[in-house]
Parts: sequence; structure tokens; C-alpha cells
Amino acid sequence: MRLPHIPFAEELDIALIGVPFDSGTTYRPGARFGPRNIRVQSAMIRPWNPVLKVDPFARWRIADFGDLSINPLSIEDTYQRIVDQLGKILQAGTRTVCVGGDHSILLPILRAIHKHFGQVAFVQFDAHGDTWGGYFGSPHSHGTPVKYAVEEGLIEQGYALQVGLRGQVYSERDFDFAHEHGIQIVTSEEFHRDGAEAARRHIKKFANRPVYVTLDIDVVDPAFAPGTGTPQVGGLSSAQILEAVRALRGLNLVGCDLVEVSPPYDSGEITSLLAANLLYELICLF
Amino acid sequence: MRLPHIPFAEELDIALIGVPFDSGTTYRPGARFGPRNIRVQSAMIRPWNPVLKVDPFARWRIADFGDLSINPLSIEDTYQRIVDQLGKILQAGTRTVCVGGDHSILLPILRAIHKHFGQVAFVQFDAHGDTWGGYFGSPHSHGTPVKYAVEEGLIEQGYALQVGLRGQVYSERDFDFAHEHGIQIVTSEEFHRDGAEAARRHIKKFANRPVYVTLDIDVVDPAFAPGTGTPQVGGLSSAQILEAVRALRGLNLVGCDLVEVSPPYDSGEITSLLAANLLYELICLF
Amino acid sequence: MRLPHIPFAEELDIALIGVPFDSGTTYRPGARFGPRNIRVQSAMIRPWNPVLKVDPFARWRIADFGDLSINPLSIEDTYQRIVDQLGKILQAGTRTVCVGGDHSILLPILRAIHKHFGQVAFVQFDAHGDTWGGYFGSPHSHGTPVKYAVEEGLIEQGYALQVGLRGQVYSERDFDFAHEHGIQIVTSEEFHRDGAEAARRHIKKFANRPVYVTLDIDVVDPAFAPGTGTPQVGGLSSAQILEAVRALRGLNLVGCDLVEVSPPYDSGEITSLLAANLLYELICLF
Amino acid sequence: MRLPHIPFAEELDIALIGVPFDSGTTYRPGARFGPRNIRVQSAMIRPWNPVLKVDPFARWRIADFGDLSINPLSIEDTYQRIVDQLGKILQAGTRTVCVGGDHSILLPILRAIHKHFGQVAFVQFDAHGDTWGGYFGSPHSHGTPVKYAVEEGLIEQGYALQVGLRGQVYSERDFDFAHEHGIQIVTSEEFHRDGAEAARRHIKKFANRPVYVTLDIDVVDPAFAPGTGTPQVGGLSSAQILEAVRALRGLNLVGCDLVEVSPPYDSGEITSLLAANLLYELICLF
Amino acid sequence: MRLPHIPFAEELDIALIGVPFDSGTTYRPGARFGPRNIRVQSAMIRPWNPVLKVDPFARWRIADFGDLSINPLSIEDTYQRIVDQLGKILQAGTRTVCVGGDHSILLPILRAIHKHFGQVAFVQFDAHGDTWGGYFGSPHSHGTPVKYAVEEGLIEQGYALQVGLRGQVYSERDFDFAHEHGIQIVTSEEFHRDGAEAARRHIKKFANRPVYVTLDIDVVDPAFAPGTGTPQVGGLSSAQILEAVRALRGLNLVGCDLVEVSPPYDSGEITSLLAANLLYELICLF
Amino acid sequence: MRLPHIPFAEELDIALIGVPFDSGTTYRPGARFGPRNIRVQSAMIRPWNPVLKVDPFARWRIADFGDLSINPLSIEDTYQRIVDQLGKILQAGTRTVCVGGDHSILLPILRAIHKHFGQVAFVQFDAHGDTWGGYFGSPHSHGTPVKYAVEEGLIEQGYALQVGLRGQVYSERDFDFAHEHGIQIVTSEEFHRDGAEAARRHIKKFANRPVYVTLDIDVVDPAFAPGTGTPQVGGLSSAQILEAVRALRGLNLVGCDLVEVSPPYDSGEITSLLAANLLYELICLF
Repeated sequence: MRLPHIPFAEELDIALIGVPFDSGTTYRPGARFGPRNIRVQSAMIRPWNPVLKVDPFARWRIADFGDLSINPLSIEDTYQRIVDQLGKILQAGTRTVCVGGDHSILLPILRAIHKHFGQVAFVQFDAHGDTWGGYFGSPHSHGTPVKYAVEEGLIEQGYALQVGLRGQVYSERDFDFAHEHGIQIVTSEEFHRDGAEAARRHIKKFANRPVYVTLDIDVVDPAFAPGTGTPQVGGLSSAQILEAVRALRGLNLVGCDLVEVSPPYDSGEITSLLAANLLYELICLF
Repeated sequence: MRLPHIPFAEELDIALIGVPFDSGTTYRPGARFGPRNIRVQSAMIRPWNPVLKVDPFARWRIADFGDLSINPLSIEDTYQRIVDQLGKILQAGTRTVCVGGDHSILLPILRAIHKHFGQVAFVQFDAHGDTWGGYFGSPHSHGTPVKYAVEEGLIEQGYALQVGLRGQVYSERDFDFAHEHGIQIVTSEEFHRDGAEAARRHIKKFANRPVYVTLDIDVVDPAFAPGTGTPQVGGLSSAQILEAVRALRGLNLVGCDLVEVSPPYDSGEITSLLAANLLYELICLF
Repeated sequence: MRLPHIPFAEELDIALIGVPFDSGTTYRPGARFGPRNIRVQSAMIRPWNPVLKVDPFARWRIADFGDLSINPLSIEDTYQRIVDQLGKILQAGTRTVCVGGDHSILLPILRAIHKHFGQVAFVQFDAHGDTWGGYFGSPHSHGTPVKYAVEEGLIEQGYALQVGLRGQVYSERDFDFAHEHGIQIVTSEEFHRDGAEAARRHIKKFANRPVYVTLDIDVVDPAFAPGTGTPQVGGLSSAQILEAVRALRGLNLVGCDLVEVSPPYDSGEITSLLAANLLYELICLF
Repeated sequence: MRLPHIPFAEELDIALIGVPFDSGTTYRPGARFGPRNIRVQSAMIRPWNPVLKVDPFARWRIADFGDLSINPLSIEDTYQRIVDQLGKILQAGTRTVCVGGDHSILLPILRAIHKHFGQVAFVQFDAHGDTWGGYFGSPHSHGTPVKYAVEEGLIEQGYALQVGLRGQVYSERDFDFAHEHGIQIVTSEEFHRDGAEAARRHIKKFANRPVYVTLDIDVVDPAFAPGTGTPQVGGLSSAQILEAVRALRGLNLVGCDLVEVSPPYDSGEITSLLAANLLYELICLF
Repeated sequence: MRLPHIPFAEELDIALIGVPFDSGTTYRPGARFGPRNIRVQSAMIRPWNPVLKVDPFARWRIADFGDLSINPLSIEDTYQRIVDQLGKILQAGTRTVCVGGDHSILLPILRAIHKHFGQVAFVQFDAHGDTWGGYFGSPHSHGTPVKYAVEEGLIEQGYALQVGLRGQVYSERDFDFAHEHGIQIVTSEEFHRDGAEAARRHIKKFANRPVYVTLDIDVVDPAFAPGTGTPQVGGLSSAQILEAVRALRGLNLVGCDLVEVSPPYDSGEITSLLAANLLYELICLF
Repeated sequence: MRLPHIPFAEELDIALIGVPFDSGTTYRPGARFGPRNIRVQSAMIRPWNPVLKVDPFARWRIADFGDLSINPLSIEDTYQRIVDQLGKILQAGTRTVCVGGDHSILLPILRAIHKHFGQVAFVQFDAHGDTWGGYFGSPHSHGTPVKYAVEEGLIEQGYALQVGLRGQVYSERDFDFAHEHGIQIVTSEEFHRDGAEAARRHIKKFANRPVYVTLDIDVVDPAFAPGTGTPQVGGLSSAQILEAVRALRGLNLVGCDLVEVSPPYDSGEITSLLAANLLYELICLF
């Protein structure tokens, strides 16, 4: 978005923050280069949003904060680094827009958000629920952050919504966690049938609460976003995800992220281009 | 799908069978590598289908049978080899799911199916009718199998449905064959307008009959399935083809195939990934 | 379309004309190779249109006229060359279908059209309005032709329609030009909601007037047309643009063009393939 | 090479002839599009050869004859068509430069050459000897033409040279045919060690004889020519193959071909570009 | 190499073993898919080596052992798993040919080799020495295995050779470790000047010692092997690396590996193809 | 090279300067994105050069100056802008390393250099001499800068060397300009035969003179540098161009540039990676 690089949180209302970490990936890696490629593809983003009727850059001081320091060789060390660095930014009164990286970074982000804002309502655009447990004896991966966020009480009970889930799972029991913890689900099939209205009815009650939004690019169909780690067919189109994000307008957004853009699997940079536009739309929600 | 390789029909209820033959192709070849690439891209398929509420791997003994022996230098020889090899598998009581290869393999498959099951009802997802006559003096190509299948009486009169046809043809008379032989057609334009309902109304009367399903990946739009021999714009999305296949649930499926995935023309393996998912959905129909 | 190469206007009713010029591009170049690649991808176009029920090649003498002589090092010189060469073709009574090249070529085309037909009604399929002013002190670029065409009176006041606009702009004032000059706009969001009907209601009053149609391939979503200079997410699908073009049937078309196909950014040639099909549909409108 | 398309042999001294046939391929197909892509990539070829000091276009009437009619569904039919069509061109006194297509087309070309010129000396640039016997019970494929050409007496005993052979073979006996029939071999390893001199010493005795040259692009390393059917590592560089071809200068060339360029496997069109340059160098040898 | 899949060490003389681990990568990941893609590209490997005059498959029982179990979320856990699994294979008297994965797997492999064979002589083909220390506070990465192998005494002092080193380093002191521990170095520049002879003079004294060979594909130039994590320009050609590997013939090889093939960065699968051929040549050394 | 962005010449000894202009291109455009992609690919460049034994970043204050302001719609305007902006940088006592962009930018660079340093000796690595005259009536393009630089007296008579020329030209007379103006030429063929020594003998007499070096990436073979506007087969390898650049060590370099990297035509970013390394080597020459 041709934004200046300003690594000083106190000078910013909203900070775009790269988190180039993908060592939580269990299938196709590469999301560590997400921030780099999304920056490049954001070059043609202009300020005025004709749908939401807003120019976020005129309204807020927004800049590219740069990348967080992470450790590609250790999830645990990276988690601690993210919590620490985000904590400082949030304390400066700056809202954070994190750009992954794989979805495992959601957990430390939510920990930092929780420390600053308390429990939040939660909207997740994703093909997968990410409520699985450990893997290979390691507790954390890109398939587990929502499980831990719920169990650690980072998300307010009854105020979690997942949009775009689809595809095979291991067993019928895979949805037990969501049911037991009151997570609402709008599947891709429901979205294809009912449009953004399918999501709108659930988020009405989120009004007046602090809301955190996480967007896994694999919520979009591989035709529109091939560059991702675990692509899943039957997803949303680019027009549908734009509509879905815009449906959140009016909520009290306290932070957001966009994850799982994996440039080595992209075709013609269309995934990074879509991600750059979705980041712009997310910023317009503040 | 991380299935074991079991080349013994008697141990299986359903056999996934590669048919790496594309010498019936008149435009872009490469479908001979379809089975190989679809196998690779099926690595992330999990067992439970949350839409159809079924785990086919728990219900049936399913395995990768391996590739049939074919002859890239002769269609006639290949046709005989396919009839012979499939015949033995069918005699063992195993249902066959063939993975092409180009669409010319449909004819010997239907000959083997007919020998075992008699006449079948027939559902074809395809951008093209494949009812053309010979080419260059050679009777058989990937544009002709349906014509011969109808003329040889392999398909029951009045019980053939083609879904997804579109694009220019040579002349107004190209549809005469379909009209004369009672083949029903749901064009892509009709599907875009009416959804899967456009197909459902035709297949109601297929209930209680043995049904064979053939899926040419070019029924899907090139944005979702660029890796195919004769791509045709204006096709179904991945969500639409999933819905279309699921609309067949409840029919008495006796066999099926998926053809025309041409990996050298794929982008980011999205065609093979979609094909792997469609094979899974087809298996769920049994 | 396997058309013969006939560079003699007097032998033709309709001439397909390459305009391999992209020096008006301000972002990603490459559209100079549009004519070359679209020719290659048109190889599988057949004559009969089953939707519009017409065979244009049987009705009109149509051929590939070849490429116009242009000057990649000068917009002004190129503009003069295009006006001169098109003028001769139009004087022979031949209708022109120009294949760009970037959108800056629209202005000299409309100048030639205006000289021959007078003011025209105007339909533009495009993600961007192209009504910007100069750039770097140079008056002409691919973002300006519509502004000059309107100001030069080439288009009849009140008879201009833009379909598919979307994406951020510099400011709220970017649409002032359109409003002041009575240009009607159907945004992509409106098209996604209402379909081709959104365009149909505006063009009813175009009946009986000479109509010129320009199609910038970026009206289509990057998933369907990645090979373009300024891709914009949230666009039409291939099925939607086909429907949109066919909605023009019955108008009195006096000329048309298709621009901004940039082969170096294409994936698997799907943009050129779509462009070849759209050219065919445009020809069917005559 | 921006040559005119002139399908009249009598008007030409040298005809460049496309042979878009790849149904003799046993591994990766796609060479049927070789002529099309090589034409496109030849656009920047200029006339004067500063190494050989010759302008072939000033010396000979040279044009693009177009593609031969072939049958993708039958090798036998295609062989007959090639012999017939080339026969007519040769009878007009025109020299032929055939552009494949796979290497199976060499046999009918040599049959036509033999009918017109009698036995020829033979130079083959290739990673593989192509002296295998039948395959799957079919006698002809792209691995067999040299065997049959030798057995049919099309090549003069003792005057055959193969340059660039390398890679594993089925067994030690694979070279028996070459040894028994006096075929000389310069392996890639020898060429890397001794340069073009390794070939020059063998062809000295070819002077004053009619010589036919066949160039399989896989003689070049996959880094320089990835777009081919059976790539083999350890091959010549582009500079080495240019030197090797130029080493033939002074021989009495009666015909030549270049085969096995498979565009779907190319990267950035570098294989087609190299092929276009090698065709130019071959033409300079006449 | 179309080898059978036999996961029973006691039935094998030589086991090809996949190690799909790349979490030791500090720059571009993807080597976890190296084994998968190299398997696919080995399909055309034939048995007889005309340069080394040997058919390894006739001489030894060789098979694809499958992939080792690794943990993408933990280097330490993975190291233990590799040592354990390789230990069992070596105890069965089987020689191991490991296919990475990133170069961090070299350390546990050498630990297992050392436990079975004691200290070994060591030949490393690589653009980088991999003798760096820790990174981000984590001791192990793909840049460190040789440092630890030397310090742990796995390699015999004075019997280590690195071939192909090149490119910038952090400082002049980066080579201190090699000098202090008697590691011999043949840079790429020396290899380009003197050929394989540059390596041969060093390995003469390795005769009669157990030798372990590790080949990092980035020893080859990016033109020949673009699909790797840290490509370095100025490398060996495919012909040169073949010659370099063959120069080891006659040594007493006790094990080897090939690492750092990263398929998402490959072009046209040429890196995997080269890797498959190099594995074949390594096997011929036993 | 992870250099800081410092747009203040007075703080720098050497400035890396992007010149994203490619409107002088007559064939394949895209070099306007050269600076952007080369920056990305320079991420892994480390400071110490083990061949030249120098750390330029320790010796000089070097930074990324950013991109010059250019006008994509006018060569003349761009020429003036480059002369003005470079003039200011040179006046600050800073040496300039320009990164194109197409080769047309060489002329204004040499004009600025001449104004500051007077006549210079000149070394050009290039596949083409770039001494052609105008094109389409426009005097300046990427094929003309050397002609004008010589005619304007920017280069000292008798002190110009071109290395790497090859390929067909329009006629024997194309070299007349070079001969008449005392330009020395080392063709690619000579370099392949004699190595860097072929260049060394010419530049001996350049000692003690101010030397300007221009490097057109197409001097390298398309296998090593596919991403360029006018690729020419038979070029140098990456190892050879590294050797050639290093052969200039000891000269009194007053400025240099690297041009014609066209990212849309690159494969796997290997051209940008090579360019980043060559820029590093050029910097080491100061």
C-alpha cells in the first residue's frame, strides 16, 4: 500500500505487522514469505473505499511496522517473542493488523490481545476449524490455536463464529469441540446458499463487544487463492470473501490478522494480491 | 488418500484404478499423468464427509488397485486390455472407480460394465457431449465414446443425462444425435441459472436403476481446473460441481470414472486437488 | 479461430485487427503480446453459437487482418497511425474488432469510429473507469481514454455505460467525471447481486443507435483472467462476463475491442483462452 | 523468423515444415505443439550469421511451408501421409527442414529422403540412440526410428554418427545394434572432454556424400532445454550444441529435422527459443 | 526408479530412505517434499550405467524403504527418531541412502553411522560449509550439522573434504573452523578451473577407509537446480556434478545422502530429475 | 542485501539506485520491475567476498538510495530526469550503481557521468552491441545508447570494450559502427574458447583511466537468466560472468549499472538472484 515503514508504535493508530513464521505448518510450508509478497502486491492499493465510503489512511495514522522477530527453529520461543512484542505495541494504544505466517501465530496474538483487552468476541474466516489437539506429541501447530484460545479463556464463551468451514474431517467427532464450547459455524455450503446473510445473523449480538477477526486465506477457493498451505476446494470466491468481510462493518474491532498466504504455491501472485485487498478491507473496519 | 496399494480385486469392495492413457486426445495431451498426480494430491483427503454424513473407508474395503496395463501406441489394443482387466475386477464383485486418462477410455469401461451389469442409466458431467463420429478416418477418440456407447446399446434408451455442456460446436446439427437418442442435456448456462436442481429433476426417474457416472474435469471452468485437454470457459465452479455430484446421492451407482486431468497444463496442482476431492465424493455415493 | 490472414479490408465484412501496443501502461506491461497469444488460443473456437443461435462465419466474411503498424516508443505517433489505418478499413465498409494492446488504444479507435459513424453509444466492461487525467505530465495513458473520448464528443451524452467497476480509487471525487457527464455505472457488486439484468436495464435505450463496445479483460476476476496489467479482485466470473456480453444482443454494434490481455502474467493461457471466446461472442453480436 | 507462409514447394529452395505429431511418445507428450511454439519464438531471428558469415535468406528462397497433415490417432497412417507429402516437396527440388513432433517422424522422413536421394550419411544429435525395437507389441515409437532406418537401408553402412548419447540404458547389450551396424558414437562425456573436435574427426569422411541431420533437442541439458519428452541430465549447453551444429559446415546437406520440443514442459519458452536458433543454424549449413 | 516399496531392512542390501523434514531451514522451506518428488522423477531411471559399467540393481537388493517418521514441529525429537530408525536399518546390515529433507538431517544420520561404523571419512558436495554455530539461540539448523559432526568426533580428523563451496560469507573468519579441523576445501572456482581432478587429488588418501558422502543439491548452479532452499550462483553444471560423483568410484562407501531439493521452487521438475540421477550414481558407487 | 534505505547522497560513498523504466524496450517489456525483484532476491547476500578478499560494506558507506523518478510515458522526459537526479548524487561525491530498467537508461547515465568525470573508458557485458540507430522514427530505444554515447563523445575513443556479443544481426554491416569507432569486441564464442583471458588482454590499457561498466543481463545464457527482454542462446554461464566481472578488479571504476532484468519472464527468480550477486561483485570492484 506504499505505506511508510515506521517501527514506532506510539506514532501509529494502526500498525501492519509482519509475522514471517511458518514452522507450525504440518503440510505445505512457505507462509513465512507471506508478509514479503503481500507488501509487494499491495503497491496498487488506493485510499478510498467506494463500498464502505471510507478513507482509512485519512482517518488513522497507519504504517508498515515491519516484521516481528521470530525464531523459525522453535514455536515456543516464537510464541513468547510475539506476546512480548505485540504487548508493547498494544500498550502504546496502537491497534494491530498481523500478517502471517501460518495460523499457529493466532494463539500468541490472542494472548497479547487478551492481556490488553480482556476476553473478545471472535470471528474466524477459515476452511478449517483449527480446534485440533496436539500433533506428534507437540502441543502447538497451525491446526490447534483456536482450541487453546478457547480453553485459555481468551475468547468469550458464546461469542465465537467460524465462517467457511468445509471439506472432509477425521470423524464425526471433530465438531464436538465447537459444539461443546458454543462456537457457531457457517459452512461454505451455507454461505454459497445464503450469502453473507448467513454470517450476519450470528454477529448481530457481537455489537458493543470487543471483536477480534482472523482470516485464513484458505477460506477462499484454490482458484482464487492457490498460494496457501492446505488448500480446500469448494471455497468462497473473491467477491464472496469481500462481501463477508464488509459484513462486519460496525463491529468494535480491536485487532485482526490474515494468515496462511504461501507465495511459493501462488500462481501469478493472485493470492498475495487478494490478501493485500482483504487487509485493506479489514483496516476499513476499524 | 493415503490408501494402501492392493492389486487384488477379491480383497476389495471398491477399487480405484488408474488408466494412464491419452492417445485418444486430439488437442492437448498429458492426461496419461492424471492418475499419478491425482494420487499425490489426494494426500490430504480425510475420511468423514460432513455434508453426506458418511465415512466410506469405514463402510467399504477401498484401495488403490494401481494402473491398468495400456498401450500408448494403439487405441484398439488398449480398448481390449481395459475390457479384459476390468472384466476380471467386476467378476470379483468389486466396484470400479477409474481415473483417466482421456475420455476415450469410457467406451471400453462401459463395455465391461455392460457385460457385467447389463444396460445402465448414465450421467455425464462434461463441457462436451462426446457424441462426435470418427476423426481422420479413425473411429475412436476422446470425442466419440458416448456415440458408440449409445449405438452399442450399453446405455438404456431414455436414461442418459449430460450436465455442463457449453461452448461453440461445429453446427446446429451437432445436437441431433442427442435428440434422436433421448439424451437429456443440462447446459452450463442452465446450471448457472437453476443450480443442481436443474439436474435433480432429470435424475429422479433414475432411482432403482443401475447408474454409471462419468465426470470429465472440463465440466469445471478453467479457473478451477486449468489442467485439462480441451478447456472451455464459462464452466461450473468447484462448489457447483461438488453440489452437482452430491445431488446424485441415493442412486444405485454401479461404477464411475473421472477423466481428462492433464497435469502439464495444471497451475499449482489445483486441478489434481479438485479431482481427488471429486473422486472422494463419487466414492461416497456408493 | 483458424481464420485466414487477409489484410485486404474490401474483401471483408468484419476484420479482426491486432494492435500490439502497450506503451500507455503505467503498471504491468505485456499487453503488446495480447494479439499473438489470443490468436494461438483461438485455435479451438468452432463456428456455431448454441446460446445466440448464430454462425457468424457463415453470415459474414471474417478474417484476421493482421496487426496494425504501431510505434512502441511514442503514444502520439501510434495514435495517428491507428486513426489512419482504421480509417481506411472503415471506409471500405468493414467493421473492426480490435485486439489490444493496452486500453490507451481506445481513444484513436473511437476517433476513427467517430469520423466514420459520428457519435456512438458506448458500453465499457472494465474494473476501472479510465476517466483519469494525465500522468507524469503526459496526457495519454491506459487510464485516460474515456475521459478524452467524452470530452472530444466521440460518445453521445447520456449513452455511456460502464459495467464491472470496483476497487479502491484515489478519492470520493474520482466518480465526479462520470456523474457530470452522465455516464451510467453498474459496479461489480451490483452485478454480483442482480446479474446481467443490472446492465440490461441501462442499455434498453441504446436500441437503434450505433453502439461501440470496449472490453477490458480486467473486468473479470484475477482467478479467471490473471494475465492482465492491473488485476482487481472481486470481479466477474467467466460465466458472468459471457452472460453480460450476450445481454447486448440486438444492439446495432458498429465496432468493438478487447484489451489488456498481458500474456507474461497469464497462468496456463486461461486469460487468452477466455479472451478468444469473448471475441467470438462479440463477433456474434454484429 | 517472420518468414512468409508459402505452401507451394516449387516456389522454394528450402521449406520449413511443421510435423505436429507426438503419438509415438512413450513418456511425456506435447511435442505436437513444437512447430507452433517454435514459430512464435523465432520472431527475433535476424538474417546474418556472424560466425558462419552467411545470410541464408538472401541466398535461398526460404519460407514456412506450414504443417503437414498428420493423424494423431494412428502412427501407420501418419507415416504414409508424411512419405507422400514430403515426396511431393522433394520432387519439386525443394530441400526440407522438418520441425517435430516426436522422433518417430524420422523414419517416414528418411524413407522419403531415400526415395529421392538414395542412401545418405547420417548425423544424429540426441541423448538416446533410438535404436530400440518395438514397444507393447507396436513396432514404431519415438525410440525406434534409427533401428528401422538402418535395417531398411536408408542410411549408408559406416556413415552414421550419434552425438550426445548419455544416461542409463536397460543393459550393456543396448549398444550392440550400434556396434553391429557400424554406427559411431560420441557420448556427452566425450563431448564435454574434447568439444566439437570429438565429432569433427568422425565426419571428415562424410564429405562429398549426401548427409541427413536429425537433432533431438534432448541432446541439450534440461537446464537449457527443459521442454522435451525424455529429458536427460548431463547434456550439452546451448553454446556446445551451436558449436556442434556449426562443425557440420561444408557437408552436403540434403535435409534435416529438429524434434522433441514439448512446449507444455518448457520454462519461459527457452527451449523453443533455442530450437528456433538451431533451425536457423541448420539452414545456414545448406 | 520404479523400485518396489519394501520397508523390511533385513531383505535389503541398500535402502533408499525418505526423510521429509525441513524444519531446520532458515530461508526457503519445501525440502520436506523432496522425497515425494524425487520418487516421481526417478520413473525413467534404467539399470545399466554405461560410464561406470555397472548395474546396481542386478548386484544388490535395492528398494524404496519409504519415509522415516519425523516430527515437523521439533528438531530434537526428529533427531532422536532418525538415530533410532536408522540404527535398526544399519543393524540389519543394510546400507542407507537418505533423501532429504534439509541438511540438518545430516547430524543424526552421522550419529547413527558412527554408532555402527565408527569414525568415517567424509565427502560433502555443497555450496556452503554448514559449519556455522547456532541460530536464534537454537543450536541446530541446516547450517550447522558439519560443525557438530566434527566436534562430536563422528568424522575422522584430516579426512573431510568439501567440494563446491562458493558465495559470500559473513566474514573472513567463517573458514577458521575448517582450517582448524583440517577440512579440505575445493571451491567452485577451483572446480571450474581444474575439473574433477581438483577433488581427486584430495580423496586419494581416503582409500580403504569407510567413507560417507553427503550431497547438497545447491552445489549445482540454480540454472540446473533451481528447486532448493538457498540457491547460490556460479555453481557446477549437471555434467560437472555427475563427473564429481563418479570420481569417488572405488572408495569404500558406507552410506550417503542427498538433501535440500525443494520442489515448490523447482522449474519443470529439473531439480528432482537431476537428484534422481545423482542418487542412481551414488548407488553405483557401493 | 538488507541494506538500509537512505535517500541522502551526502551520507553515502556508493548508492544503489533503481531506475524502473522500460519504455525503451522494443520486444519483451517488464524490466521496470527489475529493481523491485532484485532487491527481494538480494536478501541472502552476505558481506565477505572470499574470491576478491574484500568486505565492501565495511569499507564504504553503501545503501539503497531508492528509485529515481521516471516517466513511463516519455523517453525524453525520463532522460532529462535521470541526468538531473544522477547529477545531484554525483556532485555529492557519491558513486552510482544503477539498476535498470532497460538499456536505454545507459545514455542519460553516461551523460551525467561525463558531466562529472569527463570521458570514460567503457566496458559493456552484453549479447548485443546496442549501436543501432533509431527505430520507427524515434531516435532512442534500448538498442541505441552506445551509438549515441560514442557520437556524443562520452566515451574515450579507443577505450571501449564489448564482451559477450553473439547471435544473428541484420547484416554484415552491423559491425561497421564498432570498427569505425575503435570499439573492441570479445564475442561469446571467443569467451567460451579463451575464458576471461579474452577480456583481460583488452582492458590492460584501461588502467589509470576512469572506467564505466554496464552489464546487460542478456550477456548470460537464457538457462541462467531467462528473465530478460531479448534473450539470446549461446551465452555465458553464471560462473563465466562472475569470472568476467572479477577480471575487472584493479580498474578505477567511476560508476556502473546492471540492466534488462525482466521479472515477468523469470523462472524461479534465478535471474534476479544472479543480478543481485553481480551487483555485489560490481560493488566489490570499487
